[in-house]
Amino acid sequence: MQEPREIKVALAGCGTVGAGVCEVVLNRAEDLAARTGLQFKIVRVLVSDLGKDRGVPLDKSVFTDDPARFNEADADMVVEVMGGTTTAREVVLGALKRGAAVVTANKALLALHGAEVYAAARASGACVAFEASCAGGLPIVGPILRGLQANRNQSLYGIFNSTCNFIITEMLERGAAFDDAVRMAQQRGYAEADPTLDVSGGDTAHKLTILTSLAFGVNVDFKRVSLEGIQSLKAADLRIARQLGYACKLLGISHRTAAGLSAAVHPTLVPKSHPLAGMSGTSSGVLVNGDVVGETFFAGAGAGSLPTASAVVADMIEVATGSAMASFNHLRVYNDLTSVPTYVDPADIPNRYFVRLGAASPESSKTAFGNRLKELKLPGSELHAIAEESALVALIDPVTDRVVRAALPQLADLSNGDGPTAIRILTQAGTQ
Amino acid sequence: MQEPREIKVALAGCGTVGAGVCEVVLNRAEDLAARTGLQFKIVRVLVSDLGKDRGVPLDKSVFTDDPARFNEADADMVVEVMGGTTTAREVVLGALKRGAAVVTANKALLALHGAEVYAAARASGACVAFEASCAGGLPIVGPILRGLQANRNQSLYGIFNSTCNFIITEMLERGAAFDDAVRMAQQRGYAEADPTLDVSGGDTAHKLTILTSLAFGVNVDFKRVSLEGIQSLKAADLRIARQLGYACKLLGISHRTAAGLSAAVHPTLVPKSHPLAGMSGTSSGVLVNGDVVGETFFAGAGAGSLPTASAVVADMIEVATGSAMASFNHLRVYNDLTSVPTYVDPADIPNRYFVRLGAASPESSKTAFGNRLKELKLPGSELHAIAEESALVALIDPVTDRVVRAALPQLADLSNGDGPTAIRILTQAGTQ
Repeated sequence: MQEPREIKVALAGCGTVGAGVCEVVLNRAEDLAARTGLQFKIVRVLVSDLGKDRGVPLDKSVFTDDPARFNEADADMVVEVMGGTTTAREVVLGALKRGAAVVTANKALLALHGAEVYAAARASGACVAFEASCAGGLPIVGPILRGLQANRNQSLYGIFNSTCNFIITEMLERGAAFDDAVRMAQQRGYAEADPTLDVSGGDTAHKLTILTSLAFGVNVDFKRVSLEGIQSLKAADLRIARQLGYACKLLGISHRTAAGLSAAVHPTLVPKSHPLAGMSGTSSGVLVNGDVVGETFFAGAGAGSLPTASAVVADMIEVATGSAMASFNHLRVYNDLTSVPTYVDPADIPNRYFVRLGAASPESSKTAFGNRLKELKLPGSELHAIAEESALVALIDPVTDRVVRAALPQLADLSNGDGPTAIRILTQAGTQ
Repeated sequence: MQEPREIKVALAGCGTVGAGVCEVVLNRAEDLAARTGLQFKIVRVLVSDLGKDRGVPLDKSVFTDDPARFNEADADMVVEVMGGTTTAREVVLGALKRGAAVVTANKALLALHGAEVYAAARASGACVAFEASCAGGLPIVGPILRGLQANRNQSLYGIFNSTCNFIITEMLERGAAFDDAVRMAQQRGYAEADPTLDVSGGDTAHKLTILTSLAFGVNVDFKRVSLEGIQSLKAADLRIARQLGYACKLLGISHRTAAGLSAAVHPTLVPKSHPLAGMSGTSSGVLVNGDVVGETFFAGAGAGSLPTASAVVADMIEVATGSAMASFNHLRVYNDLTSVPTYVDPADIPNRYFVRLGAASPESSKTAFGNRLKELKLPGSELHAIAEESALVALIDPVTDRVVRAALPQLADLSNGDGPTAIRILTQAGTQ
C-alpha cells in the first residue's frame, strides 16, 4: 500500500465537537489512512482557556490561545469548530485568504456571514466545506448539492433544534409550563443558561438559512427569515393537538414560487402520519421537494460530539481529496451563494391554522365561536368543544398569517382569558 | 457566462427511465447549463425495437438497435438504463475498456457482475457511477460513500421494493390472498407478468448487495444473500401483527460483526413507531448504522421514470465534472468493491420471531401451545389467543432461524392446518 499523504490540520476550537474530531482522527488514524490514503496531523489547536484539560492525546505545545499564532501554523486545512461569529470569522476568512482550505461546523457564521465567506473562497480558489453546519452528522449538504442537483427544488422543511423538541415533549408529557420545561432542559444540559437562541427559533433559522441557500442556489439573508419561537405554546395546545391527531414541532420551512422565496421558523402542527411527527431527542429531520424526484426525507443525529465529528471528518476527507472542490467549482456553489433572491413575506402565504381559546362551558359557546369565525372570514373546516380542557378549537382552512393575527383580538371576548392562540398546521408537501 | 462544455452521451435503453433522462436533459438543458456549465448532447440511443415511438424529441438517426453501432458512437459517456445483464454488461464493459465513463441504473448488473465492472473501471481509469441503481431517485450511494465515510458501518437495512409493499397492503386492507394481490398489482402495472423477481426478494437482494458492498467496503457475493420472499405470507399474519403493533415489510438487512458479514432478505415485522412502518407506495427507505454518527435514515422515491432520472442526471453531472472520480479514486471504491469478505450465515444470527398457528378454540389450547414452546426451547415473551382470528400467536425471544425452522413441524399437531408460520421481528438498530 502507498504511504498515506499527510494533511496538516489546524483545529480552531476544542470543545464538544473539537474533542470528537480529535477522537475520530487520532483513534482511527490507521483505518482512515487505509481507506482514504490520508493521514491527518493536528499541528495546532486554538482554545480560549489553555488551562482546561481537553481530554485529547495531543502534545501541549500544539495548543494556543492566540489567534495570530494559530494563523501562523503551516496547515493545509483549518477546521473551525469553535462557534461564534467574531474570532471564528477572522480565523475562517484568514485561512481562505491565504489559500488554506476550511472545514466548518459553524451555522451562525455561515448564516450571518456566508456571502463573505463564499466570496473569499471564490477569490482565493480555496475550498470551504460545511456539511456539519446544518444538521450535525446527518448528511444533508452533500445530498442537496450533489444527489438532488438535477432538480429545481420547490420547498425544504424540517426539525433542526433538539432543545425545542425536548421542551415541547416535557410540556406535553408532564403538563409542564413553558418556563418549567426550559428549567428542566437546562438542568439536564439540553439548554444553554440563556436559552433564547434555541427557543426563539434563531438556531433553527441559522440552519434554515444555509440549507435554503443551497437548495435554491441563492444567498438567503438571515434577517429575511421570519421568526416565531415556542415561548407562547401552552400545554393545552399540545394536548388538544395530539387528541386531534397532530404533533407540535418547531419547524423551519422555505418555499420557492414564481413570485419569490420565503423562509420562516414557527411552531407547526404535524399530522401523526408524517415522518417528522415521531422525531424526538437530538434527531434532525429534513424534507426536500424537488420537481423531478418528488419529496426526499433525511433524518439522523443533528447534534452531539461524535455525530457532528462524523460530518466534520467526512468533509476533511472530501476537501483533502479534491472531491469537494470538484463539486463546488462545477456547481458554481460559491457563485450562487452570493446571488440575491426575490423574497415573498411568509405572512402573505395561506396556511391552515389551529385556533384555540379557553371557555368555561365550551359546548354552550360553540355556536357563537363558529359564527364569529364566519364573520371574521375564517372558514373553519372543523369545530371542537373540548370539555375536559375547557377549550374551543377550530381548524381553519388556508388563510394568510396576516388575516389570522388581525382576527385573534376579535375572538378575545369569547375567551375565559386563556387564548385565543393560533398555530400553523403543516399541509401536504410542506405548504407553509 | 462561459460557453457550456458539451458532453456527448450515448444512451443505452430508452424505456421508462431512459425517456425520463431524455426529458430532464433536453427540457431543462438551459437551466442545467447555467447551473453546471455542462451541455449534454445525446448522440446515440440503443433500443431493441426501432419501430416503437419513444416520445422523446430526438432525431430518428440517433437510434440504433445494433450494439456494435452503439459502441462506435463518439461519446464521452455511456448512460446505461436498459436493464438486464447480457447486452447491458457488454455495453458497460465495452465503454469502460475504451475509457468512456459510465452512468448506470442497473441493479442486477452491479449485483451480479459488480466486481467485473469495478475492475474494468480501475483498469482503464474510467469512472462508473451508479446512484440510480439502488433506490431510484433517493440519494443513498453518495451519502454512504461520502457523508458517512468517517464511520465504520455496523448495519444497513431498509425497504427497496414497491411491488411487495403494494401486495402486502392489498392483503392487509382487503383481506386478499397472496395470489389475488399479485393479480391486482399486475392489473395496475405495479408488477411484471412474471412477478418472481419482486416477490421472491431477488430485486431487494440486488439492491442490498450493492449497498452492503458500499457500506462495508467489500464485494458482497449476491449468492451469499439469503432470500425469503413474501409468497408464504397470510392475510391473518398481517392483521394479527397490526393488532400487536407491527407492520409487515419485506426488508433487506445486512450486518457486520467481528465474525463476518451477513446479508438477508425476508418479511419482517416492524414496530409501528419505526420510520419504515409507515412507508408505502414506491418509496424506498434505508437506515445505516455508523459507529460514529449512529443511525441515519434516508427515504424517497425508489422507482419511477423521473425520480430515477433525477439520480441518473445527478450522476451524469458528477461524472462530467470529475467530482465522482475524485471521490471514487480517493475512497478506493473500485478497489474495495473487489475485495472478498468473510460471511456469517444469517440463519445463525438470533432474532425475535412472531409464530402463529390456526386453532379452532385458541383460548383452550393456549396452555398446551405455551408448554410446547417451552419444550422446544422457544422462550415466548408474549402469548396471545386471538379468538376472532382463530389463532394462537407467540412472540419469541431471540433464537436463530435454524432453531425456529426446526421447531415449526413440531407445532403442527396443535394447528388446525393453517400454519404454523414464523416471521422475524425487527429489533433495535436493525438486529436481524
